[in-house]
Amino acid sequence: SKEPVSVSAKEKFSPSQRKRLEALLISDEINLDDPNLPPFEELEAEMVSKRKAELVDIYENSREHMLAKLERDISAFLISKGFIEIKSSILIPEEYIIRMGIDKDVELSKQVFRTDDGKCLRPMLAPVLYNYLHRFGKVMPDPLRIFEIGPCYRKESDGSSHLEEFTMVNFCQMGEGCTRENLVQLIDEFLTYLGISYEIEGDECMVYGATVDVMHGDLELSSAVVGPVPMDMDWGIDKPWIGAGFGLERLLKAKYNFKNIKRGSRSEFYYNGIYTNL
Amino acid sequence: SKEPVSVSAKEKFSPSQRKRLEALLISDEINLDDPNLPPFEELEAEMVSKRKAELVDIYENSREHMLAKLERDISAFLISKGFIEIKSSILIPEEYIIRMGIDKDVELSKQVFRTDDGKCLRPMLAPVLYNYLHRFGKVMPDPLRIFEIGPCYRKESDGSSHLEEFTMVNFCQMGEGCTRENLVQLIDEFLTYLGISYEIEGDECMVYGATVDVMHGDLELSSAVVGPVPMDMDWGIDKPWIGAGFGLERLLKAKYNFKNIKRGSRSEFYYNGIYTNL
Ligand SMILES: Nc1ncnc2c1ncn2[C@@H]1O[C@H](COP(=O)(O)OP(=O)(O)OP(=O)(O)O)[C@@H](O)[C@H]1O
Ligand SMILES: Nc1ncnc2c1ncn2[C@@H]1O[C@H](COP(=O)(O)OP(=O)(O)OP(=O)(O)O)[C@@H](O)[C@H]1O
Ligand SMILES: [Mg+2]
Ligand SMILES: [Mg+2]
Ligand SMILES: [Mg+2]
Ligand SMILES: [Mg+2]
Repeated sequence: SKEPVSVSAKEKFSPSQRKRLEALLISDEINLDDPNLPPFEELEAEMVSKRKAELVDIYENSREHMLAKLERDISAFLISKGFIEIKSSILIPEEYIIRMGIDKDVELSKQVFRTDDGKCLRPMLAPVLYNYLHRFGKVMPDPLRIFEIGPCYRKESDGSSHLEEFTMVNFCQMGEGCTRENLVQLIDEFLTYLGISYEIEGDECMVYGATVDVMHGDLELSSAVVGPVPMDMDWGIDKPWIGAGFGLERLLKAKYNFKNIKRGSRSEFYYNGIYTNL
Repeated sequence: SKEPVSVSAKEKFSPSQRKRLEALLISDEINLDDPNLPPFEELEAEMVSKRKAELVDIYENSREHMLAKLERDISAFLISKGFIEIKSSILIPEEYIIRMGIDKDVELSKQVFRTDDGKCLRPMLAPVLYNYLHRFGKVMPDPLRIFEIGPCYRKESDGSSHLEEFTMVNFCQMGEGCTRENLVQLIDEFLTYLGISYEIEGDECMVYGATVDVMHGDLELSSAVVGPVPMDMDWGIDKPWIGAGFGLERLLKAKYNFKNIKRGSRSEFYYNGIYTNL
């Protein structure tokens, strides 16, 4: 390689060596600035060997992808709490985006991916869940509880906590019991079940107005809303409701202390947080 | 409504009434040409009542979406058979499409959806599975078994067995035991587990050459391949392999005898085959 042979005591590893070692780490379990670390070749070989052993262990034992397993666990939790499981189209009409209040001048509008035949890759699950609340609201007993988990897409510029392709869970209840207390209670049961610590903060957004944000330090895990909101009428909704949207890869980043959210994303470069180029 | 008040004995229902009744049916459980059927209003009310009761039963008991449940069941089956679960990006680079042999003049190329930033919505799972076979092939014991389940996209014109947004499962094995016999055996175990009858046919395609097609009457459930194929070298693969791709909505169409594949698709109009506009 073309890096200088001798490096200063403070720069034990060249930039490309450091990048390689950071990729081979799971999180920050080794301090790469520790002067007592072995030389690069020895450290790299040791880490490659560990990562290979971990992948072989997954292959011989669990064989589950962490993002899929999290989706299954969340689905089972919500189903056990009385929420009916929805699976709807990832491609949605432009009309739904506009009717969510995501007008051409709103920031979120510039974040929407479009297909070459004029559809939008959904940036959120809310529009179709609104339609299900309306249609199922005429059929199901009160309260109505529904949820969906699936891919969402946003054009993003920020790096370590944003993906352009991510996975959202959105659960909501309509009718009886749609109070802020019950929303916060449900969020608490959800995050206790997942074993992730959190703090509640107030915030605001263009689409809904006031939100209840669920934080893990500086990382936003969720925005949650206590309805009703003025937009409801346009979706045929005239009852109280509560709802929350969580990003699954954000939950994995929090749980496993990943430095970059890519570690738990749909990826060919990382498998359950482990670099695949070994 | 503007339909004629008197209809001939052969046309008991007007076109729009018939369309409404067909939507309210699950499959062909009622013969709409039967002259002894009640008048439209009575039959419609009866069917709406049945469909509502079925939705309420799902809400009070299982609460599982049939497409998600099928994905979970297939994942559990394949994991139990030693296949490691992959989840990779639904958006793939144009380069992967080209390297799969899907050139500009090949039919499948015209079927590919593109995003406004130049990526492609994957029409198949194969390219990233090739990359996983290559990377995991350096790490895992032999034979290597992998699978992925997830959304795929193709522009389609044919109606009742084609969706533009569908769900593929692709499983493959590389190394030892990659024979046509073992492939057919695995397909048999898979479809026996799912309780779906099938016949094996030979066919051909642009991408792989000769395929083993898995049929349910006239409905293609899968194309399967016994590698190696010449394209393998370009993906860094130099061992024998076998693989198969099944559409999950095709499996649901076969199992539940749906007349239109939309019944088991990601949808806001049908929930587990049941029309939601009640
Ligand atoms: N680009 C993204 N990558 C991963 N997760 C995301 C992304 N955008 C949103 N989420 C997740 O979806 C949840 C609900 O979406 P919401 O619209 O509230 O996000 P947001 O307020 O734009 O988040 P942020 O401020 O971090 O961009 C977020 O709390 C987060 O967990
Ligand atoms: N548009 C679609 N809608 C639903 N399922 C599909 C679609 N295209 C392919 N599949 C499923 O994926 C499987 C593997 O894909 P393959 O490329 O072999 O499809 P195909 O040969 O183009 O199918 P067909 O001949 O029916 O168009 C198919 O056997 C089918 O089960
Ligand atoms: Mg944002
Ligand atoms: Mg937010
Ligand atoms: Mg086809
Ligand atoms: Mg085929």
